[in-house]
Amino acid sequence: MKSVRVFAPATVANMGCGFDVMGMTLDGVGDVMTVSVEEGDGLQIENLTDVELPEDIDKNVVTPAIRAMMAAFGEKRMVKVVIEKKISPGSGIGSSAASSAAAVYGLNVALGSPFSDERLVEYAMEGEKLISGGTPHADNVGPSILGGVVLLRGYEPLDIVRLPVPDNFCCSVAHPAIMVSTKMAREVLPKDIPLRTAVKQWGNVAGLVAGLALGDVYLVGRAMCDVVVEPYRKQFIPGFDELREKVTAAGALAFNISGAGPSVFSLSADMATAERVGEIMREHFANQGVGSDIYVSKVSNRGARVVE
Amino acid sequence: MKSVRVFAPATVANMGCGFDVMGMTLDGVGDVMTVSVEEGDGLQIENLTDVELPEDIDKNVVTPAIRAMMAAFGEKRMVKVVIEKKISPGSGIGSSAASSAAAVYGLNVALGSPFSDERLVEYAMEGEKLISGGTPHADNVGPSILGGVVLLRGYEPLDIVRLPVPDNFCCSVAHPAIMVSTKMAREVLPKDIPLRTAVKQWGNVAGLVAGLALGDVYLVGRAMCDVVVEPYRKQFIPGFDELREKVTAAGALAFNISGAGPSVFSLSADMATAERVGEIMREHFANQGVGSDIYVSKVSNRGARVVE
Repeated sequence: MKSVRVFAPATVANMGCGFDVMGMTLDGVGDVMTVSVEEGDGLQIENLTDVELPEDIDKNVVTPAIRAMMAAFGEKRMVKVVIEKKISPGSGIGSSAASSAAAVYGLNVALGSPFSDERLVEYAMEGEKLISGGTPHADNVGPSILGGVVLLRGYEPLDIVRLPVPDNFCCSVAHPAIMVSTKMAREVLPKDIPLRTAVKQWGNVAGLVAGLALGDVYLVGRAMCDVVVEPYRKQFIPGFDELREKVTAAGALAFNISGAGPSVFSLSADMATAERVGEIMREHFANQGVGSDIYVSKVSNRGARVVE
Repeated sequence: MKSVRVFAPATVANMGCGFDVMGMTLDGVGDVMTVSVEEGDGLQIENLTDVELPEDIDKNVVTPAIRAMMAAFGEKRMVKVVIEKKISPGSGIGSSAASSAAAVYGLNVALGSPFSDERLVEYAMEGEKLISGGTPHADNVGPSILGGVVLLRGYEPLDIVRLPVPDNFCCSVAHPAIMVSTKMAREVLPKDIPLRTAVKQWGNVAGLVAGLALGDVYLVGRAMCDVVVEPYRKQFIPGFDELREKVTAAGALAFNISGAGPSVFSLSADMATAERVGEIMREHFANQGVGSDIYVSKVSNRGARVVE
């Protein structure tokens, strides 16, 4: 039997303007999983934590990811997964993605690393497909496996570009205790958007990538602005516009919805500002009668990895 | 009297996916202009070449550009402009933009360089506003003044990002002898586009900027792909899809419409391929009974400049 314990970080998908094509990696917050393989055939999933996960193995996100990978591996094994879930489902910082990412990363190591990290992203996407109702996404699993900022240039075929992140990018995330399903967040979006609006968005996407490449945190801040999706999704987040004003006044460079929400995130150029912004977020939601979890973290270049 | 002779290069706007937000600079092809200032007040424009330009000074693109700049300068001068037009109007490689760029660049030098290059872009945009019927664009004037690849992150306020271009980027441009006005090319575009399509486009825009920043010409080639505008504009270009197949088979990395057309351009990783592609373009249009001008050039990091 080969057993490995792995960590896969939480992630912020979309990064404002980069809806469905970009995601970035957080530091220190993520899921931990122990994956074992032995002779035999099958899959067992055990949940060590008090976070509620589906009893039915076919409804757990790690199942399709592991099955896709074992099908590609071509030999049968008994796979056992023990989940220590640290991110609440529905948090908007890639909870299901971190689970899928940890599962495929751990399984790959346990199998003797037959697959590249890019292939792992493809298998982990099978988990995302399960929860999104058929559309595969990699804007959380990509960064959770690879680290840094990950760009999905295209999906047919999958074209993954990893962009290293400069040292001083700090992120404050607030996960307010309200439930917004990814499905609900998708359903409010329009099918069509004005071409003018789309042009503004891809100007910002270009600015965001340029800012990352040039290490210009202020350009990243100016560009990290979503004119397409945010207008429809901010209704789910109590006092969204007011909170943006508060964190911007406190020195944050950008403030957006994380993934499909309800989490929000803010980018800062230093840790002190990011800590202050985290406090402002907590206070804001408390004033609205909503509890929240706050994560303050550097943006990290490290993705999934083996831990003791 | 202070007199200066300047060159402003031709440019390829849009670069495939970067509709209205990006443009790149060609080498060797462009407009030449002599700008003089002396005591007095007024503007004289002389056209030395056989290219037909508006007789009415108020209809010449350089006029609003120069007037905007003189208004900002705040003192009156007699300005004389002598145009040696090298790019045909309506060519799709920034003909009017090269004129506006040359005029403001030359005037700035003649006035003792009171304005930054970024400010010059704003004045040159006034010329583009005249021909586009009110909407200001900088995706040709930006690169013609600044060189390299220029990104217009946003217009309110104008946020210009200059991206240096790696050495080996070569461009083949064909200007077929057919007339497509920018106005006509704008009118065929839809007001709204599917969100799915917009997401594909900004994935490509992000890939294009990442490829430029990483110096990855193959990523640039994969990303330089326009799913939004090309489907509506390729009808103006005889045998567009067939020509793409031919140049791709010859080793070109990308093939797109230049600006609003009818010019097309192709990107190659070396000059020999770019030359071959230029010949294929010429032959293709000749077979369609259409003459064409071919420009084969490195993509250049040099914008407008003083010449002897």
